Amino acid sequence: MFDSKESKTLDVMFCDGLKDIYYAENKILKGLEKMMKGAECAELRAAFEKHYGETQGQISRLDRVFALIGKEPEGKKCDAIEGILKEGEHIMKEFKDAPAMDAGLVASAQAVEHYEIARYGTLKSWAELLGITEAVSLLDQSLREELATDKALTGLAEDHINQDAIRYAAE
Amino acid sequence: MFDSKESKTLDVMFCDGLKDIYYAENKILKGLEKMMKGAECAELRAAFEKHYGETQGQISRLDRVFALIGKEPEGKKCDAIEGILKEGEHIMKEFKDAPAMDAGLVASAQAVEHYEIARYGTLKSWAELLGITEAVSLLDQSLREELATDKALTGLAEDHINQDAIRYAAE
Repeated sequence: MFDSKESKTLDVMFCDGLKDIYYAENKILKGLEKMMKGAECAELRAAFEKHYGETQGQISRLDRVFALIGKEPEGKKCDAIEGILKEGEHIMKEFKDAPAMDAGLVASAQAVEHYEIARYGTLKSWAELLGITEAVSLLDQSLREELATDKALTGLAEDHINQDAIRYAAE
Repeated sequence: MFDSKESKTLDVMFCDGLKDIYYAENKILKGLEKMMKGAECAELRAAFEKHYGETQGQISRLDRVFALIGKEPEGKKCDAIEGILKEGEHIMKEFKDAPAMDAGLVASAQAVEHYEIARYGTLKSWAELLGITEAVSLLDQSLREELATDKALTGLAEDHINQDAIRYAAE
């Protein structure tokens, strides 16, 4: 049934997925640098700075997961994150110095977070099945950080960023 | 402070966001057609078919939201969904007829779902602030469908799809 492709099992896909998120995390670091510069609100800038540090830690965890499967850390072009970040850059250009800039930055960052939530959720579940116990724990830590960041961004937006995007217009 | 760009407030960004997800949903319909054809497992195919119908309904809801803000429905190229779907197509080619195909399809579909969860969450929150009450309800219905689809896909993967990706290799 699976003849010539029978070797393409979950372990191969797990390794491909690691390369995908490794590439993505490194791109996200660069994206976060731009977002920090673009943010008007000090709390939003601080949230991006915090997540910048977390992202560096997540890359270190991925280095460890590669080691656990006996591979050198390696990225593989991730079209998804390229597209998500491109859209974020477009918003930053389009809304530069505009009242809605920070609301747009939060939306862009949440699209990034959700991509990572999807990927870490999948990789964690595959690591469980493949019996790579230490990888499960490492991927779960990164997954929890992404979920917490997404929640913190929603909190910031609801607190005042979205209201600012309306209020400034009325001034 | 916001001089020449003062008109770029949340209502402008809300309209841009609607165009983004309108484009994305229409692309997702085409992506789901391919995923239905690619799925080995009947339950996964059925899940994609169900979500195909939901996606058509989500597009109709977006038509209504456009009407609520006095605009014609219109898409605007969404680089994020282009990238996410391109990655899915790559997995479908790479793992065609391979044991891990369905696991890869679930992962790809969940990346799509999470993009939509991020966007509908943002748009719903903006519609609340803009006081477009009917839009809040419509966007919330779509958000709930996306969350339910993501959960259903996790259930399917955990039930047997991921295990199959390993088991077939041993046969």
